[in-house]
Amino acid sequence: MFTKVLVANRGEIAVRLIQTLAEMGIQSVAVYSTADKHALHVKLADESVCIGPPRATDSYLNMRNVVSAAVLTGADAVHPGFGFLSENADFAELCEQAGICFIGPSASSIRQLGDKAVARQTAAALGVPVIPGSDELPNVEYAVAWSRDHGFPLLIKAAGGGGGKGIRLVHDEAELVAQFVRTKAEATATSGNASLYLEKVISPAKHVEVQVVGDQAGHVWVFPERDCSLQRNKQKILEMSPSLQMTAEQREQLQQLAYKITRGTKYVNAGTIEFLQDEAGAFYFMEMNTRIQVEHPVSELVTGIDLLATQIRVAAGVDLPGGNRNIAPRGVAIECRINAEDPLHGFAPAAGKVRNVTWPLGGNGVRIDSGITAGDDISPFYDSMVAKLIASAPDAQQAWVRIARMLSQFHVSGVPTTRGLLHDLVRDETVQAGAASTEYLTTEWLPDWLDKSEEASI
Amino acid sequence: MFTKVLVANRGEIAVRLIQTLAEMGIQSVAVYSTADKHALHVKLADESVCIGPPRATDSYLNMRNVVSAAVLTGADAVHPGFGFLSENADFAELCEQAGICFIGPSASSIRQLGDKAVARQTAAALGVPVIPGSDELPNVEYAVAWSRDHGFPLLIKAAGGGGGKGIRLVHDEAELVAQFVRTKAEATATSGNASLYLEKVISPAKHVEVQVVGDQAGHVWVFPERDCSLQRNKQKILEMSPSLQMTAEQREQLQQLAYKITRGTKYVNAGTIEFLQDEAGAFYFMEMNTRIQVEHPVSELVTGIDLLATQIRVAAGVDLPGGNRNIAPRGVAIECRINAEDPLHGFAPAAGKVRNVTWPLGGNGVRIDSGITAGDDISPFYDSMVAKLIASAPDAQQAWVRIARMLSQFHVSGVPTTRGLLHDLVRDETVQAGAASTEYLTTEWLPDWLDKSEEASI
Repeated sequence: MFTKVLVANRGEIAVRLIQTLAEMGIQSVAVYSTADKHALHVKLADESVCIGPPRATDSYLNMRNVVSAAVLTGADAVHPGFGFLSENADFAELCEQAGICFIGPSASSIRQLGDKAVARQTAAALGVPVIPGSDELPNVEYAVAWSRDHGFPLLIKAAGGGGGKGIRLVHDEAELVAQFVRTKAEATATSGNASLYLEKVISPAKHVEVQVVGDQAGHVWVFPERDCSLQRNKQKILEMSPSLQMTAEQREQLQQLAYKITRGTKYVNAGTIEFLQDEAGAFYFMEMNTRIQVEHPVSELVTGIDLLATQIRVAAGVDLPGGNRNIAPRGVAIECRINAEDPLHGFAPAAGKVRNVTWPLGGNGVRIDSGITAGDDISPFYDSMVAKLIASAPDAQQAWVRIARMLSQFHVSGVPTTRGLLHDLVRDETVQAGAASTEYLTTEWLPDWLDKSEEASI
Repeated sequence: MFTKVLVANRGEIAVRLIQTLAEMGIQSVAVYSTADKHALHVKLADESVCIGPPRATDSYLNMRNVVSAAVLTGADAVHPGFGFLSENADFAELCEQAGICFIGPSASSIRQLGDKAVARQTAAALGVPVIPGSDELPNVEYAVAWSRDHGFPLLIKAAGGGGGKGIRLVHDEAELVAQFVRTKAEATATSGNASLYLEKVISPAKHVEVQVVGDQAGHVWVFPERDCSLQRNKQKILEMSPSLQMTAEQREQLQQLAYKITRGTKYVNAGTIEFLQDEAGAFYFMEMNTRIQVEHPVSELVTGIDLLATQIRVAAGVDLPGGNRNIAPRGVAIECRINAEDPLHGFAPAAGKVRNVTWPLGGNGVRIDSGITAGDDISPFYDSMVAKLIASAPDAQQAWVRIARMLSQFHVSGVPTTRGLLHDLVRDETVQAGAASTEYLTTEWLPDWLDKSEEASI
C-alpha cells in the first residue's frame, strides 16, 4: 500500500480524499494555489505545497508543478480527483515517468476512451449499441452530406470535449455550418484536439450511467446505475441511484453492456460509462469518463462500497474482493449539487466571502460532502460547486422527503446559491417519479420556475 | 397511518423523532419544560406545548400533562422516546384510555417484561438460559441462605430498576446485609416496587443485546447484535454492531434466543433483549428493554432499516414486510455518546451555556444525532448526553479510524464533555479488537487514563 499520496485537486473532493487517506493510514499532501492558501483541504492534509497563482492553468492544471510537488514531498502516488488533470493522459504519463503511481486508469486507456470518436468505435466493436453518428468530420461539406442522410436535430461533438464542453445542438443546415466552424475553433483552443463528429439526438431520453471498477487481475465490479437526467447546459445538478423507472431486466442488460466495455478495454480503476435510454427502454453508449465523478456518493450509499478507497487499493495492486460482481442497489440515494450561482441572474457564478454556513441537521441517511467553511472566499477562478447534499433511504419517497428537509435546513450567507432552486426541484412530481428526461429541466421546469421566482421577487 | 404524533421527550431523540415524522408526512407536536423553551426540538416541531417547570417529575414525567397536551393538540399517537415515560405501563394505559395510540408495546408487555424477576421466569419458561439467580427475596435471611448455596460475588437487583439504577455488587455476607436494606429502601422510593432478587455475577463477560421488532400479526424481525460492554456505572458509553468477536454460529444461536422471547411473549413494536456472554461463548438472558434505545443508530446503519419509522408503522397496524427475518449485519457501526460531564472531576455533570459547537466534517459513513446548538443551556435537570457520533464502514478497522476522526474534529466550547476520553478510548487495542468485557473500562482502562490525564493537567 502507498505511504503518502498527493491530492491534485481542491474543494470538496480534496477534503473527501484527504479524510479517506487518513482513514486508510496513508499520509496526504495537499496542493494549493495562492487563492486557496487558507482552504479547508490545506488545513486537513499532513503536508501542503503551493503550486502557483490563482488561475487554474498556472496551478491545478500545471502538470509539472504538481509532479514536482509529489517528488519534493516523497509521495508515491497522486490522486487527481475529478476535473483539472483527472482525464489528462499526458499527466498520467508524467507521473509514471517520475516513478509516481497515477491513481486512475493507464494513460493509454485515458487516450482510447477520452477520444469520444475512438470510444464510440471501441464500444460498437464490442457489440454495445451506440448512438447513430458519423465518423470524424473531415470538413463541413461531409457534415452537411451526413445530415441529409440522417436528419435533424443533431449534435456536433468535439472528440476531445468533456464536462458539457464542446457539444452543440443544431436544427438545420445553416446552424450546422455556423456551429461547425465555431466548435472546431473552440475545440482546438481548449483541448488541442480539433476532431469533430455528428451524433443523432435521442429525445426524449434519460441519462443513465454505470459506475465500474476494474482491477489489475481483470476483475470488474459493475454498480447499479445512476440517473443523471437533470442537467442544465449539460451540467448535472441532481443525481440518484438507482434510476427509479428501471426494471430489474433493464438493469441486468445495462450492467452487461458496462461489463463488456470495461472487460473489453482491459480497463483498470474506476470509470463511468454514460448511456442514453430512449422511451422504448433501449440503451445507447455515449462515452466513458475515465475518473471518479462528482456523483459517486450516491453509488457508495446504495452499495456500502467506498469508491475512493477502492480506487486507491486497486491502484496499489490489490484485487477486488470476490472477483467479478454485478452489484444490486439497496435503497435509494439522491445527491444535490449546491453551486454558488444566482439562478435569477442567469446562473452567474458568485464570488465573495461566505459569512456563515448552516448545515442540515444530521440523523439517519444524511451525508454532506463539502470543502467550504465560514470565512472562505468563493473564488471566480474555479468551479462554483460548494457542497453536495446526499440523502439515502430505504425507498424513493423517503429519500425525496429527506433531501428536501436537508435543503430546507441548509443556508449559506454571503453568496447566492442554487439551494432554493433545488429545494423546489426535489418536490416536483415528475422529478420525484424519476420520469424527467434530459430536456425536462431546461425546457419545462426551469422556465416556469424562473417566471414564478421573478414574479415573487418583484 | 397517524396524522399527528406527540413526541414525549427532549434532546436528540426528540429531534430525531420529529424529523422522522416529517419525512413520513406526519405532523409533530413537541412538549417542553420551561427550561427547554428555546430548545431545538421545539423549533423543529409543527406545534409545541409547555408541560411544566424544569424538574422532570413536573414536566416530562408528568403523565397527565403529557396526555393532556396530546388531547389538546388532537394527536392520534404518542412516541415516548427512551427514558422518561417510555417504560411506564401506567402511561401507556393512560394514553389508550384517552384514545391515543402509545407507540410501543402494550401496557401488559411493559409490566411483564419490566419486572425483571417476572422477565427472568418468562425467559426461563421459554427455554432461554438465564443467569443463575434467586426468586424474590422475602427477607434478608433468605438472601444470606441463598448466597451460602451459590457463592459470591452476587448482584442485588431491584425488580423494578432500569438504566443502571437499583443494582449493587456484593462480595460477602456483611455487604449483602447492608446493601439489602439500602437497595430495598431506594427501590421503594424510586419505583414503588420493593421486590429484590439475587443474581450470580458472570465475569468476565460481554454485554450483547439484540434489537427486535414484532408486528401485530406476530412476525418478528431480529437484528444483528450490539456489543455494549463499555459501561461506566452501568451506563453505556460506546456501542457497536455487530459484536466483533461473535461467530456466525453464535449469532444464529443468539438471534434464535431473541426470537423465542419475542414470539413467546407476543411482543409488539421495538424492544431490546440484553444478554451476557461468558468466556466460553454461552449466553445468559438479563432483561428486556421495552422501548427504543439510545444505541439504535448502530443497528440502523448495519441493516439499512429505519427503526423509528418501523416503530411508528407497526404501531399504526402495518405488518413487517416479508414477515419473520433474521437480519445479517452489513459492515460495522460504532456509536459514541458525548456527555456534558467532566471526567477529571468525577464525571460531574456540567451545566452552563454552549458557546459554540464544531461538528465533525461530513463524508462517507458519518452520522450525527444531536439536539444541541450554540447558545443552548445545558440544564442540570436532565440527562447529560448532548450528542451521539456514529461511524459506519465496511469493516471494523475503517470504522474505528472514522469514529476517531469524528471525535478529533468535534468540539464543544463552554461546557466540559467526554469527547477527549472517548477519543482516547476508541484508539485502545483491546477496545478495537472488540475484546473488552463489561469490567474493562472501569477496572482497567479508566484508572490508567485518569492517572495519565491528571498528570498531564498538572
